[in-house]
Amino acid sequence: MPEIHAARRARAQELIRESGADAALITARPNVRYLTGLASSNAALLLPAEGGDAILATDSRYAGAARRDAADLGLLEERFIEEKLATEASRRGIRRLAFEAHEMTVERHGELVARAEGVATLPFGRKIESLRLVKDAEELEKIAVACRLSDAALAEVLPQIHQGMSERTVATLLDHAMTLLGAERPAFDTIVASGPNGAIPHHAPTGRELERGDLVTMDFGALHDGYHADMTRTVAIGSVDDWQRDLYDLVALAQEVGIAVLEDGVEAGAVDAAARDVIEAAGHAAHFQHGLGHGVGLEIHEAPMLGYGRTGKLTDRVPVTVEPGVYLPGMGGVRIEDVLVVTAGDRARFLTSTTRELLVL
Amino acid sequence: MPEIHAARRARAQELIRESGADAALITARPNVRYLTGLASSNAALLLPAEGGDAILATDSRYAGAARRDAADLGLLEERFIEEKLATEASRRGIRRLAFEAHEMTVERHGELVARAEGVATLPFGRKIESLRLVKDAEELEKIAVACRLSDAALAEVLPQIHQGMSERTVATLLDHAMTLLGAERPAFDTIVASGPNGAIPHHAPTGRELERGDLVTMDFGALHDGYHADMTRTVAIGSVDDWQRDLYDLVALAQEVGIAVLEDGVEAGAVDAAARDVIEAAGHAAHFQHGLGHGVGLEIHEAPMLGYGRTGKLTDRVPVTVEPGVYLPGMGGVRIEDVLVVTAGDRARFLTSTTRELLVL
Repeated sequence: MPEIHAARRARAQELIRESGADAALITARPNVRYLTGLASSNAALLLPAEGGDAILATDSRYAGAARRDAADLGLLEERFIEEKLATEASRRGIRRLAFEAHEMTVERHGELVARAEGVATLPFGRKIESLRLVKDAEELEKIAVACRLSDAALAEVLPQIHQGMSERTVATLLDHAMTLLGAERPAFDTIVASGPNGAIPHHAPTGRELERGDLVTMDFGALHDGYHADMTRTVAIGSVDDWQRDLYDLVALAQEVGIAVLEDGVEAGAVDAAARDVIEAAGHAAHFQHGLGHGVGLEIHEAPMLGYGRTGKLTDRVPVTVEPGVYLPGMGGVRIEDVLVVTAGDRARFLTSTTRELLVL
Repeated sequence: MPEIHAARRARAQELIRESGADAALITARPNVRYLTGLASSNAALLLPAEGGDAILATDSRYAGAARRDAADLGLLEERFIEEKLATEASRRGIRRLAFEAHEMTVERHGELVARAEGVATLPFGRKIESLRLVKDAEELEKIAVACRLSDAALAEVLPQIHQGMSERTVATLLDHAMTLLGAERPAFDTIVASGPNGAIPHHAPTGRELERGDLVTMDFGALHDGYHADMTRTVAIGSVDDWQRDLYDLVALAQEVGIAVLEDGVEAGAVDAAARDVIEAAGHAAHFQHGLGHGVGLEIHEAPMLGYGRTGKLTDRVPVTVEPGVYLPGMGGVRIEDVLVVTAGDRARFLTSTTRELLVL
């Protein structure tokens, strides 16, 4: 859909003009993909502030894809893309070149400056990321597909989980199911944290075998056409103690309360605060150390961040995760995570659909 | 093994002194892991040129692992690790701080400079990477395990490959087998390229179904305890044409010739040239567009690079891939890749062991 990308570039050009630059060199991969449609590990875009004369540079491995997906752009087939685009910027008489200082290394910037004779570079900030915050219908559909693949994989794997199975096996079953169902690949390293390991939010799966009475937290998601899903469910193995059910109910309530305030125009920090208040009131303030959620899209973690004191309003068509957790050192933990889209004039819409009831397997 | 890491830090300190800095801020993850033993997505090391007073900074998620794996280092538990270490460098009166310009972004460097009052920063180059080039016995064993896991996974998957199976399914079977055998995860995105797709060196697996008469190239590897394996085999489905067998034999011969010159003291470029000459003599110069191989270790591609015109001698205990390929647009391709260790006074030792004969499945 070259029109979509052309429209995005037109919006980016407004931001370039506002920044006072004559052109921008876009090097962050998700941003290049967003503005051109090209998925490449070695591509950059030289986008002038005015006019349609943008140049996409990539190497021979991706040149065919670039001709197909970005036919409306000038193509520079070249291995050392940034050096060539710097030379080109200089040749075109660009005086002020915005660059992505949050992505470019000091070393690459030095090479850029050396090639870009007569060109001053200025940091562009996360301007393209700010465009990416609100998704169009095509993007929301891709995220929805990624979420459906994740739900479907979990539905396949849940009946296979049993006592004695290792965390690592559960993780590999989830990854395998997502891929066979058609995911590009898992969207990130799958987390499976059982028993006491559940107290570690970012636990990497180990050989620990599931035991009766464990809570098991699974945090995973599918990648579909460049777009990421991210969901978490905590299940019990065989039986569930009262403290575990209480903890689960608390986290589920915190999620529900957070989701209830997730609407067009709400402050990001207010969503976090609503859920956090529930957990704090139960005496677990110290056991919920991460933010409530984050945006998803071409990156697994992107703006907006829903965390303590985060500012900025959430608006229509912004997809976010809502993922409260409580982690009790040495005992275990619970996290429940869904992806929802803020929707104008309505409640936020769930893109993940697996039950949020506590399942005892 | 804290002694190993202390010895590595002592060698790094020599390099810091040579560079004229008072201390180095190490931020590249594989380098931090190499010097401290800590595997973390958010860790940095402030290493003074003299003395044992190094500080490892990481956040609460990794603090437990840091206390366990790097007990001999000062630990700073902090979320914004670089800013804190910059302040600390200033407090200690460090005047010249080396930093990893190939890893640090311009934005992070700006924040560093703002915090590091009275401290000048200077690029440290790839000094730690140069230390990592020659492996110790423990590292070689980890790479050997990663290679054995890769061989074992392929042995499990080969009998399952059949006509009608998609590239993506072959890839997911390989990934699944590696993980179930005990790999941390696949070392990189597995490549499966069948029929005409085999002409694309970095082809991402698609839904294309294997057909009788296809050549299928599988490029994959296991990650074990942070260390990467990387191997490629090309197999035939059902039958093999003369041109395919000729191509296979050519690539196998090029690999054999390259491996024959792979010994202690050889120039990196000479190994590439030896294999490349074989392919060029057969008229396929234009169909082998990548380097012959690369180092493996804490990164999947690391020094030394075996490519056209690359300088620098290979020495004892340097593991490299040897992976010639010939790619015929529209027709298909062959690549054969093994990991070998340069060994003083002997032939290079294979770490991968799957047969290099052409298998017809």
